[in-house]
Amino acid sequence: MASTQDASRSKATQDSWILPTRTVEEPKLKVDFVTKKPGVVTWYNCGPTVYDASHMGHARNYMAQDIMRRILRDYFGYEVHFVMNITDVDDKIILRARQSHLLDKYTADVTSSSTPLSPTFLAEVQAAWSAYVFKTMKDSLAAPTSDDYAAAKLAWEEILTSEKDLKWVEAQKAKEEKFGMYLSAVRAGLVGLVEAEKAAKEGRIGVEEAKALITANHDAISLWLDKKLGSTVNDPTIFRDLAAYWEDSYFKSMAALHVERPTTLTRVSEYLPEIVTFVEGIVNRGLAYEAGGSVWFDTTKFEGAKGEESKDGDDGWKHTYAKLQPWSKGNRELLEDGEGSLTSTTGKRSASDFALWKASKPGEPEWPSTWGPGRPGWHIECSVMASAVLGEGMDVHSGGVDLAFPHHDNEIAQSEAFHNCRQWVNYFLHTGHLHIEGLKMSKSLKNFVTIDDALLKYSARQLRFSFLLQTWNAKLDFKESAMQEVRAAETLLNNFFAIVNALAAEAKADSVASDGQHHFNQPELDLLDKLEQAQLAFRVALCDSFDTPKGLQIILDLVSATNVYLARGRAEVNISSVVAVADWVTRMLRMFGLGEGAPTNVRGERLIGWGTAAAPGQEGAGDRQEILMPYLRALSAFRDSVRKLAMEGAPASEILALSDQFRDYDAVELGIALDDQADGRALFKLMPPESLRQARDAKLAAANEKAARKAATAAAAEVKRLERLEKGRTPPTELFRSSPEYSAWDEQGIPTLDKEGVEVPKSRKKKCQKEWDAQKKLHDEFLKESSK
Amino acid sequence: MASTQDASRSKATQDSWILPTRTVEEPKLKVDFVTKKPGVVTWYNCGPTVYDASHMGHARNYMAQDIMRRILRDYFGYEVHFVMNITDVDDKIILRARQSHLLDKYTADVTSSSTPLSPTFLAEVQAAWSAYVFKTMKDSLAAPTSDDYAAAKLAWEEILTSEKDLKWVEAQKAKEEKFGMYLSAVRAGLVGLVEAEKAAKEGRIGVEEAKALITANHDAISLWLDKKLGSTVNDPTIFRDLAAYWEDSYFKSMAALHVERPTTLTRVSEYLPEIVTFVEGIVNRGLAYEAGGSVWFDTTKFEGAKGEESKDGDDGWKHTYAKLQPWSKGNRELLEDGEGSLTSTTGKRSASDFALWKASKPGEPEWPSTWGPGRPGWHIECSVMASAVLGEGMDVHSGGVDLAFPHHDNEIAQSEAFHNCRQWVNYFLHTGHLHIEGLKMSKSLKNFVTIDDALLKYSARQLRFSFLLQTWNAKLDFKESAMQEVRAAETLLNNFFAIVNALAAEAKADSVASDGQHHFNQPELDLLDKLEQAQLAFRVALCDSFDTPKGLQIILDLVSATNVYLARGRAEVNISSVVAVADWVTRMLRMFGLGEGAPTNVRGERLIGWGTAAAPGQEGAGDRQEILMPYLRALSAFRDSVRKLAMEGAPASEILALSDQFRDYDAVELGIALDDQADGRALFKLMPPESLRQARDAKLAAANEKAARKAATAAAAEVKRLERLEKGRTPPTELFRSSPEYSAWDEQGIPTLDKEGVEVPKSRKKKCQKEWDAQKKLHDEFLKESSK
Repeated sequence: MASTQDASRSKATQDSWILPTRTVEEPKLKVDFVTKKPGVVTWYNCGPTVYDASHMGHARNYMAQDIMRRILRDYFGYEVHFVMNITDVDDKIILRARQSHLLDKYTADVTSSSTPLSPTFLAEVQAAWSAYVFKTMKDSLAAPTSDDYAAAKLAWEEILTSEKDLKWVEAQKAKEEKFGMYLSAVRAGLVGLVEAEKAAKEGRIGVEEAKALITANHDAISLWLDKKLGSTVNDPTIFRDLAAYWEDSYFKSMAALHVERPTTLTRVSEYLPEIVTFVEGIVNRGLAYEAGGSVWFDTTKFEGAKGEESKDGDDGWKHTYAKLQPWSKGNRELLEDGEGSLTSTTGKRSASDFALWKASKPGEPEWPSTWGPGRPGWHIECSVMASAVLGEGMDVHSGGVDLAFPHHDNEIAQSEAFHNCRQWVNYFLHTGHLHIEGLKMSKSLKNFVTIDDALLKYSARQLRFSFLLQTWNAKLDFKESAMQEVRAAETLLNNFFAIVNALAAEAKADSVASDGQHHFNQPELDLLDKLEQAQLAFRVALCDSFDTPKGLQIILDLVSATNVYLARGRAEVNISSVVAVADWVTRMLRMFGLGEGAPTNVRGERLIGWGTAAAPGQEGAGDRQEILMPYLRALSAFRDSVRKLAMEGAPASEILALSDQFRDYDAVELGIALDDQADGRALFKLMPPESLRQARDAKLAAANEKAARKAATAAAAEVKRLERLEKGRTPPTELFRSSPEYSAWDEQGIPTLDKEGVEVPKSRKKKCQKEWDAQKKLHDEFLKESSK
Repeated sequence: MASTQDASRSKATQDSWILPTRTVEEPKLKVDFVTKKPGVVTWYNCGPTVYDASHMGHARNYMAQDIMRRILRDYFGYEVHFVMNITDVDDKIILRARQSHLLDKYTADVTSSSTPLSPTFLAEVQAAWSAYVFKTMKDSLAAPTSDDYAAAKLAWEEILTSEKDLKWVEAQKAKEEKFGMYLSAVRAGLVGLVEAEKAAKEGRIGVEEAKALITANHDAISLWLDKKLGSTVNDPTIFRDLAAYWEDSYFKSMAALHVERPTTLTRVSEYLPEIVTFVEGIVNRGLAYEAGGSVWFDTTKFEGAKGEESKDGDDGWKHTYAKLQPWSKGNRELLEDGEGSLTSTTGKRSASDFALWKASKPGEPEWPSTWGPGRPGWHIECSVMASAVLGEGMDVHSGGVDLAFPHHDNEIAQSEAFHNCRQWVNYFLHTGHLHIEGLKMSKSLKNFVTIDDALLKYSARQLRFSFLLQTWNAKLDFKESAMQEVRAAETLLNNFFAIVNALAAEAKADSVASDGQHHFNQPELDLLDKLEQAQLAFRVALCDSFDTPKGLQIILDLVSATNVYLARGRAEVNISSVVAVADWVTRMLRMFGLGEGAPTNVRGERLIGWGTAAAPGQEGAGDRQEILMPYLRALSAFRDSVRKLAMEGAPASEILALSDQFRDYDAVELGIALDDQADGRALFKLMPPESLRQARDAKLAAANEKAARKAATAAAAEVKRLERLEKGRTPPTELFRSSPEYSAWDEQGIPTLDKEGVEVPKSRKKKCQKEWDAQKKLHDEFLKESSK
């Protein structure tokens, strides 16, 4: 945890960080991690702004926090008070809720009319589309001169055809992330309008056509309605309901990822009085000012302001602004993004000043305050809620790295201003960005992945494993090639746990039997030494800023080394040594949150292995009967088949084939790996069926290939045999008769005179006799085969 | 853990203890607990000598070790390599196995004789009883002058009546723990003898009477037999089998108490070669000597012997004997007790020397060695096994406090002699004694409680809770009043968990509902502050030599404080604050091993509460793997057997018999009812094994009865057949000839004239003809059968 100050502090000088002090001495995670109270970590984590579905960026951030929280609690033994907020008051929520409310109402009005696709409605949508084009394409060369439908349509057509404009489109896409979405929306909207115009001409003016037009122009109509009617939306439940819906969705996604709930959850909407009081406190210190019903934090006054004398043991200290990212102080884009799209800047004295309190316009939720009705600025929310639960300061504050500036720097400034303290947060943890296949994730890049999407493709364990394979503060690249690595590791671990469980179950049966040997020799000492070395290295890795990739690698290496030991074979294995390894591996994987199901049996005895996820809908199935039934069915069916064959007097080969069939098919589907051993006792293990299927198919493929090779060899041999038979058709007595070389033969057909009438030389005759003998043999074979 | 040096060191000066050193720095449990490797604890615990059922003394010791092991691992995050031995070579085991073997054999001989209660047998028991009296009452004023029955009986009667002797009896009881048992055995034995003498007079000399006499004189006969025949018992399996039986019993008791198994288990019988080598090493250093086939550790030479110079960084160090209890050095009673009752002291040079190797006499198990056949001394066993697994030294060594001297002091001396090292063990943990209602537990005091006894009265959790309420090294008084305290605490905790779970379930239903209030005010801040204070105090308590009583009190106080908060009523309660408390309490109770059942649901989410023990028979429910294993084992074994028969080419009938056997026995034990149906597909059900066993036995009985009825019918038919055959012996021609009714017959023998000479009437003749025909048939049958 070397980088707990702030991983991203490197590019500019930081205000000198001070090591927190405390009076009680205690065991430490690392010398430089000093919690305010021994063994207790107070931690505030920036939670989500709830207005849409959670995506992989959220997963990256909250999973990383969850992993660190588990390590501190379950590995280092700290008690962690983990506080997280839900931002349910925010400009994005206001806009989304208002637009969504107005569109729903508009759709209801249109579709309940007697002529849904009325000329008025059509004209409104044309106006909405034109306004959208006018707004989003205003920087193009062919920008429409007005929001008139004809003008907008003409401009759009030119944008699509003029080469110059196409170049502009490409440039715009690169410049503005959302531009691709604008283009799509304009295109889809126009298609919808053309369709609707045609339908209206043909008299199809029903609900279906009207709905199609609204869907095609969803974004344009929402904006148009909001501009026209946004200020009329003042029912506070509209904003709160949207937030509640997405908060629920967020926690469902987190539960699916095995991210634990915070110890204490705070909602902005529930802390308004405290926020007002907090802002008043800053104003009273003269570090904030009111302007037009809004209150601004005065960064200029704050910078260098003298801190309270009696506090923090150093009387000469001064406040500093932007402690985390001093180099970002003037960054206008970051500052604007932090303020929200509905915030007016009227009355703000300096560009780096930021809103503590915003006067609300009509159509925005509001709460009473000293400065009139309004709502809190984004940054103040976290300062207030963290202070309300954790008091004047905390050990750890965390969030995604993009929150470092201005959000966290502003939080720090406000809180140190209010509490008049020198170091509000002792350790900041900023989790790294997420990329997808090397690219930033964005809707316009079509690589936007929600958590639900990801969970369709990968298990929660696979996702967590892939995140653990990169450090919490690194830029995490989520890519298919990394998932291959995860799957390989998963297979290695599954196989390891299966074999250890199988051997342990075997050993349990005769636990006190002794053959007089201790079976604890050099290989076992070596194995346990490897375990100890792994435990030491693992501790070092986690002490080194939660280095989980190294930690996982240590575990996988230990498993591989243990597999080498296991390869000695069942008779040479000391199971208790292997269990010691598997037990530690199990505990560490579960500590990381990679476990599925309960870690113990009902007697509370720790199980070996990281469990298997319950099938959807099967999560509650702990019922003995339910678990057993498929296995009993297979067992009974196998016995039935054996009896049937026996009663029919089938040969042994068929019974053996049946037992092979059972091993390769029925057992595989149940996840039972049956490994027939030379001693006639099969080793059985519980494994995922998929891996067993693969192993079987590979084995069968190999066997088929071998059989095919054998068949080819047999076919070649048959051809050879037939050729040989054919050669044997000629009787030996006829072998030389037809040859023009000779003119006379003896009664056996051996040549006596050559074609000149000269006697055949002895050596030649001998050679012929040899050929004759060979042909005799072939001919005999031929006769024998022919008579069959 | 302030007292890890040794809690009992206070009465005399100890050799100065040195703080172990190491090069790698790391977080510490307390400054003075320094493990050899950071984060890893190597630990050797003296395991049981297995010759009888485990009692509460064992529970006190092993439960205390288990609690400390769990605290180090699950609270302080150490990895613990916990090694424990099973002492299966020991004088107590030898004696128990030999006597039990001889008594079984003697009982079998006596009861299989035609006159079990024979005069010889009676005389033998009288002799055995007299010898027992002679031996055990020899110090009384009325001590018998010989082991003659009459003398012994007379002496015994005087002991029971003379006032002086009764005083002596009381004094003896106070002096010798076993004396009460001797008295009872003598009394019961004599009652048995008198009964038997009466029975013999009355002619009741059967098996029952003989068995009753043996039971009454169990101890006396065992001793008498052992004296006479002990030396003939030489089969090593007799000793090993007894040890294996009680080892199994020990682990069952430990499992019932939720005491985890050691990481590595060692058995003395498996380490003989290593023991011989180790003893040789000490002899080679000149610190032990051989005498008459035994080897003795030379305490005189060891004391002050110079240690190896280059070792341990201090060149001037010397060996010291009895580091733990220097004040016990000359304690003859402790020394003798440590040597074992079968050990001869011939050749021993000094009273404080102790046996490393004992020459075995006939009737004692033996292994080869440099000094001839023998067996190891008690102390050397642990030195060797600990060294074999953990190497030259270890962090922690533990055992009951009564093992401190001489056992552990001798272990230390031997090991430091062999390894030539200065401090073999860095921390000794000696668990305190156990008392029952203020008194030492002993069989003679009739307050002897086995673990099984205790578990009939209290749950494993109650026992553990009561042990946690006293410190591990204190004298633990197990008393009913303390159990009342435990029950009260249990009720407090059960009620607390029940209400928190109920409130949490209610809250879950509307988790995102918000009334605009945060419900996190001063009472909640106070509650969470109490939680933090408890967490801090708990840590301090466990750091203070595992102060579990204080730890539990902190938990109970926190629960009471939370109950006060809960009394505000459901509407005023912030459930997440209460859950934070309950979650911590749950984790700490489970860390102590007080949990029942799995700590999480099947989705791996931590449950609130310490669970409830599974009902007997339902223990396997819940964990898939555990539920399945016995069934898969049976399935795999059945398939193995089928394959074996098929490969051997066994006939179909054998395979069918196998499948019947599976249905009637293996399946029954698993609670699978297999009902073979006409269509060849068995119907299967899950049923309690007991009902299946009954059904099977009833079915077998019915089949047997049916067979018996069939046999009886067959026998009756045979009788009938034989009668019929007998009846057919007379030829039809002779049928009427001998009848005085007639005076003349035709050639066929049919009567023609009656005795009066009057012609037989036609009707009568016809009747005779009919009888004749019937007899003809019977006679033909007779002839046919006879000719066979």
